[in-house]
Amino acid sequence: MKFYSLLFSILFAINFTIAQDFQKDSIQLKSIYNQVLNEGNVYENLRSLCKDVGHRLSGSPGAAKAVNWGERLLSKYDLDSVWLQELMVPHWVRGDVERLDFISGNKIYKTNCTALGGSVGTNSSVLSGQVVEIHSWKEMEELGNEKISGKLVFLNRPMNPSYITTFHAYGSCVDQRHQGAAEAAKYGAIGVIVRSMTLKFDNNPHTGSMGYKEGIEKIPAVAVSTVDAHNLSEMLKLNPQLVAKMKLNCQTLPDVLSYNVIGEIRGSEFPEKVIVVGGHLDSWDIGEGAHDDGAGVVQSIEVMNLFKKLNIRPKHTVRCILYMNEENGNRGGKTYASFVKNKGEEHIMAIESDRGGFSPRGFSVDGSDSQLAVIQTFENLFEPYQLHLFKKGYGGVDIGPLRDGKICLIGLVPDSQRYFDFHHAPTDVFENVNKRELELGSAALSSIIYLIDKYGFKSTGFNQ
Amino acid sequence: MKFYSLLFSILFAINFTIAQDFQKDSIQLKSIYNQVLNEGNVYENLRSLCKDVGHRLSGSPGAAKAVNWGERLLSKYDLDSVWLQELMVPHWVRGDVERLDFISGNKIYKTNCTALGGSVGTNSSVLSGQVVEIHSWKEMEELGNEKISGKLVFLNRPMNPSYITTFHAYGSCVDQRHQGAAEAAKYGAIGVIVRSMTLKFDNNPHTGSMGYKEGIEKIPAVAVSTVDAHNLSEMLKLNPQLVAKMKLNCQTLPDVLSYNVIGEIRGSEFPEKVIVVGGHLDSWDIGEGAHDDGAGVVQSIEVMNLFKKLNIRPKHTVRCILYMNEENGNRGGKTYASFVKNKGEEHIMAIESDRGGFSPRGFSVDGSDSQLAVIQTFENLFEPYQLHLFKKGYGGVDIGPLRDGKICLIGLVPDSQRYFDFHHAPTDVFENVNKRELELGSAALSSIIYLIDKYGFKSTGFNQ
Repeated sequence: MKFYSLLFSILFAINFTIAQDFQKDSIQLKSIYNQVLNEGNVYENLRSLCKDVGHRLSGSPGAAKAVNWGERLLSKYDLDSVWLQELMVPHWVRGDVERLDFISGNKIYKTNCTALGGSVGTNSSVLSGQVVEIHSWKEMEELGNEKISGKLVFLNRPMNPSYITTFHAYGSCVDQRHQGAAEAAKYGAIGVIVRSMTLKFDNNPHTGSMGYKEGIEKIPAVAVSTVDAHNLSEMLKLNPQLVAKMKLNCQTLPDVLSYNVIGEIRGSEFPEKVIVVGGHLDSWDIGEGAHDDGAGVVQSIEVMNLFKKLNIRPKHTVRCILYMNEENGNRGGKTYASFVKNKGEEHIMAIESDRGGFSPRGFSVDGSDSQLAVIQTFENLFEPYQLHLFKKGYGGVDIGPLRDGKICLIGLVPDSQRYFDFHHAPTDVFENVNKRELELGSAALSSIIYLIDKYGFKSTGFNQ
Repeated sequence: MKFYSLLFSILFAINFTIAQDFQKDSIQLKSIYNQVLNEGNVYENLRSLCKDVGHRLSGSPGAAKAVNWGERLLSKYDLDSVWLQELMVPHWVRGDVERLDFISGNKIYKTNCTALGGSVGTNSSVLSGQVVEIHSWKEMEELGNEKISGKLVFLNRPMNPSYITTFHAYGSCVDQRHQGAAEAAKYGAIGVIVRSMTLKFDNNPHTGSMGYKEGIEKIPAVAVSTVDAHNLSEMLKLNPQLVAKMKLNCQTLPDVLSYNVIGEIRGSEFPEKVIVVGGHLDSWDIGEGAHDDGAGVVQSIEVMNLFKKLNIRPKHTVRCILYMNEENGNRGGKTYASFVKNKGEEHIMAIESDRGGFSPRGFSVDGSDSQLAVIQTFENLFEPYQLHLFKKGYGGVDIGPLRDGKICLIGLVPDSQRYFDFHHAPTDVFENVNKRELELGSAALSSIIYLIDKYGFKSTGFNQ
């Protein structure tokens, strides 16, 4: 009897502790949300990044300005250290001419176009040729050299609206932007015209990275808006002999010295173990990089601000990283991962926000089953904030190189429906970000970091 | 042994049937989502409602046009019947003058203002008086007659950003818009200036309904933008003697004949039992009523389109109702409920979409515990579409009068963060609605109706 009585007491004590912890954590999360929704800096910081700095492609003066901006801002928050991490970045410049016209008989149709990042130019001359529309690699192969050589290939496969998350639609379509030029050049194409990667039917062209293949000729690549893609397809039905004229003077210059911007709060118990939060500081050179990824940058900075403001003293070192060069090379992510490896630092978790500043829906976990299981025990704590996704999935580009079989990589998952309306387009500006949605993302990041810092990846008992 | 064998067989057969049903329903939901995301009419219908009809306050020519528009559109979808249900609606008109200036010394500050719906005008003259700022009813009581009489009361309590859903913030603040004039008039105020009901800090004034109390003088009520409210508060700190000058020529005219627009598909098994889906056709007279509630109108119409397109033959009668006069009287909702009662019709469920055309998050159920329990068995079917909220809660204004202790009332719950950026403001226009978010709402409505039509409120076994 004594034994059972003791066992009961122990079990009671454990459950009581768990319930107390849960209550304390609920209060802490509420104070995080209250702080950011009432007095957060995140929206004003995004305004400043978008309007005072503007767009900031790797290697550009804007990127250099953004590095200064990030360092200065992090230095305001009384962190234990703020430093710059050197890296060499590619330096592609758009130039001042990008033009694509379609000529049918005596009619000229001018497009809204944008060179793809990394594309070669047209050598100060006008590239002119007939247009072949294709929708799949198989179709390209079937048309072959005979039908493609000397022409411009028009890659017009639309993103599939059936997918519920737009990232699936993007993922299953973006190969034509990435590989289109290299594939078409194999059959002797002289240039490619790519339908913009968006589900929205409008006049905005969307840029983005593309690559060439060794040993295959580099041909210029340009994106057109979905409206222009639709119209070109219609015009080709009426006149298959239609001619496109392309002029681009973009080019790739020598690599440039740039930086990741890093700030940290040293851990009180395990300073040698690190939790990373970050977004990427670089952006494409049209629009203002507001959702991609100004949002992730200011949300990550806000995590540091919240920890200091609320006097949360983390056990582990919490490091905020503003990565350079996610868009066209991921040199920032790779450089940071090499640094960690060389120093032999232990990282228990890295979280990234790079899917836009929209209403957060949950977390996507690239970790072990047991890590995921611990994160899922937090579900009830997040229920009042309407975060419901706690699933295995992709972390993010910048944190990817940290993967070592031990670290838990996490992506913040916001609602995806509007992301590709703005992604890499002139409309990715501050005005298209909602203040509360942005703030809620920052609170979600802070909350999950607070919890994992507190419990590590040991069971909390919350789900029992 | 035989008994156990039989029992096992029966249990196996039941589970097999449940699994088969689940699979069939999954496929049906997928086809609903595919149809609306690929070939839905809902976005084009919203464009037409916003641009071809425009705003449509009860009693206005716009509302009459909207009734014709709705009847014509529903008639296109080959329903079993489409009809108009007569009702008398209030007829308040804004007039062509609304002006509010603040005068401090020799400086004039002009505001962006909008009369509240139902307000009296200023009798063709300019109302002029000192301004008293208040933040609570208690404060008003304390100031009393002495400090308020002969002045304009400025109700400047902001919506509280701490609430996670913006409807909570609205609900705990909107009393100052509804009752502000009646309360202030008790203390002899000559007019009220109300801070707009929004969490956004911008220059747009938001209108909305207000009411008077019998036996208390009717004084004019105007809303100012949050920026103007902020500025007025600052100016009052510098100069408490500041004077406001208000001119409004809004007025209430005699009631006008109007209509609910109704279309139905007759049930194949239980035609006498009805499932209702709807939104409200009327809107405020600034903006285009895109989110409020053009979205709900076109989503409800699309349910009928989807059922016909996908050849879903409902067992129960499915009735789409475009209610008139939700904004300032709810006469449409009340008239429909009276009609149902008089006819002795049985309604098993009514669902309403009136919280904007944003990404759907789930359903809010105003029904019995057992009805909610059945709806919660559908959670796994909705998981692929990221609907997670299946909770007790409010249904909606239009369906409210149907409550009889038996019917299950349901509100579609979209993400709320952006709603009050646009609500009752000049910015509630078509361009601020995202196509996919709107479509997903329509698919969610169609799916829940399909499931409740199929199973009624009997257990599906899906949660076992």
